Amino acid sequence: MNSASDDLLAGELRGGEHRLRLRVYYEDTDFSGVVYHASFLRFMERGRTDYLRLLGIDHRALFEGGGAESAGLAFVVRTMTLEFLKPAYMDDVLEVVTRPREVGGASIWLDQMVGRGHTVLTTAQVRVACVEDGKAQRIPKTLRDALAADAAKARDL
Amino acid sequence: MNSASDDLLAGELRGGEHRLRLRVYYEDTDFSGVVYHASFLRFMERGRTDYLRLLGIDHRALFEGGGAESAGLAFVVRTMTLEFLKPAYMDDVLEVVTRPREVGGASIWLDQMVGRGHTVLTTAQVRVACVEDGKAQRIPKTLRDALAADAAKARDL
Amino acid sequence: MNSASDDLLAGELRGGEHRLRLRVYYEDTDFSGVVYHASFLRFMERGRTDYLRLLGIDHRALFEGGGAESAGLAFVVRTMTLEFLKPAYMDDVLEVVTRPREVGGASIWLDQMVGRGHTVLTTAQVRVACVEDGKAQRIPKTLRDALAADAAKARDL
Amino acid sequence: MNSASDDLLAGELRGGEHRLRLRVYYEDTDFSGVVYHASFLRFMERGRTDYLRLLGIDHRALFEGGGAESAGLAFVVRTMTLEFLKPAYMDDVLEVVTRPREVGGASIWLDQMVGRGHTVLTTAQVRVACVEDGKAQRIPKTLRDALAADAAKARDL
Repeated sequence: MNSASDDLLAGELRGGEHRLRLRVYYEDTDFSGVVYHASFLRFMERGRTDYLRLLGIDHRALFEGGGAESAGLAFVVRTMTLEFLKPAYMDDVLEVVTRPREVGGASIWLDQMVGRGHTVLTTAQVRVACVEDGKAQRIPKTLRDALAADAAKARDL
Repeated sequence: MNSASDDLLAGELRGGEHRLRLRVYYEDTDFSGVVYHASFLRFMERGRTDYLRLLGIDHRALFEGGGAESAGLAFVVRTMTLEFLKPAYMDDVLEVVTRPREVGGASIWLDQMVGRGHTVLTTAQVRVACVEDGKAQRIPKTLRDALAADAAKARDL
Repeated sequence: MNSASDDLLAGELRGGEHRLRLRVYYEDTDFSGVVYHASFLRFMERGRTDYLRLLGIDHRALFEGGGAESAGLAFVVRTMTLEFLKPAYMDDVLEVVTRPREVGGASIWLDQMVGRGHTVLTTAQVRVACVEDGKAQRIPKTLRDALAADAAKARDL
Repeated sequence: MNSASDDLLAGELRGGEHRLRLRVYYEDTDFSGVVYHASFLRFMERGRTDYLRLLGIDHRALFEGGGAESAGLAFVVRTMTLEFLKPAYMDDVLEVVTRPREVGGASIWLDQMVGRGHTVLTTAQVRVACVEDGKAQRIPKTLRDALAADAAKARDL
């Protein structure tokens, strides 16, 4: 049901890394005049979600469990190491870059960056786990293979 | 499992109206220096949720369906008329006042107000419906009776 | 500094109405499985902000006061009447439609709609005021003229 | 202007650590049924903000610059290492514990924990910097001394 223009919304995947452009709105900022720190985590989650979307994951279907391998699955962040280097501002167009670093049976290690033009604003190393009712579950094999292929490409950059 | 101090967190119910005090944090504000307009809806939802909590509703249990009368139920906002009269600021202590105005089989009409001291900042008339899978459902009778009693008290104020 | 692809992010303006497509992410949903009601206000604010952007408004510059006519100005919602007709879900691609209905000296009346495909999910009538330090200010004339022209076009639809 | 009951809202400070109780509402959860990961950062920011409040910091006044030592100052997160160990749910009463670990001229290192009863849900090591227009500034001396005293107490625990 995804049209071509819906896919544009999901960013682009090239050379083993995913890039998503997004705009800073009122909702993302705080009274000190800059983007609120937790908004960067929302931006990074959008990047991860769309990256997996372009690898074939429909998050709602995955959770609601249409298929045999994937009933009730969701992705959750287990660990995250963040550096907030420079502020972002209202109206900015930002880019979220997501690269898989390593893929295990039930976990994905990703490197993420939020930038504006050539300026790096925030970086993160993230471990995401695949869970069902809070318990670790194997990542669907087709997804694992696609992530591993991207991780190999990203290492070659 | 609710301790006395947990109940304090849920505000207080007196004379047919519910009052909840809350603090404005960074997350609630935007770059223009004031509380972001949609944050007032989050504050009002906290007020409604805690009001129903003090009338005996455990929202998670209601949704997950522990009992006979209430499997899968949730409350959703159907209509809302808002007036944003004055701004709120970082560090402010606000009070959310919630009064039931009328109770139907599947809907509750509420008047809500967010104030700071004696200053009214935002007012809302809200219709909340009880739904299951998006379809209107009868409000559990014990809750309906409690709301109707409060609505009668609030009319006498 | 806005490139062509940045402008794509801001939606499109045609026949006196603005359309912005956006995706539903984890952050927009709540535990009952649908999009949280206040998230629709965030979506509508994105629509209004990008509509004004395409009419030439740089919100940060407006607030920080680069020019003669516009020092310290911001747009704030004064009144809002909302109908939440149908739920939206994780992964949905939604469209926010914004049409100016009337333009006064210091206020704009807008009709907004959030839809999915041909389904209307939420509608709103919104009055937005131009303020400086919380006090009503005249809307910059070039913006007022552009809004009035769009309102005339939208009436002809 | 803070009344006694406003101070209750700000949590309590004892033995060099700050504890803030808060409730999980609809707004904090996502469609997978648990608290959204970035909501924990909002909770931790509430803890840090109220901790500094009890040490005498009025965040709005600090930013708007009432006094000689503090014009235009704000606190921003520079680095954060997070572990999300267990999920939180709708209706939960959580506790945010904040302990200063070390205090420098322009930075504060804090350990934070969000728990439910005796269960640790999320932990974080956070470095917060004092900035003005994005540039590091010395932390006001009275605050630095109070933090250092708490850090010494917390080490003795």
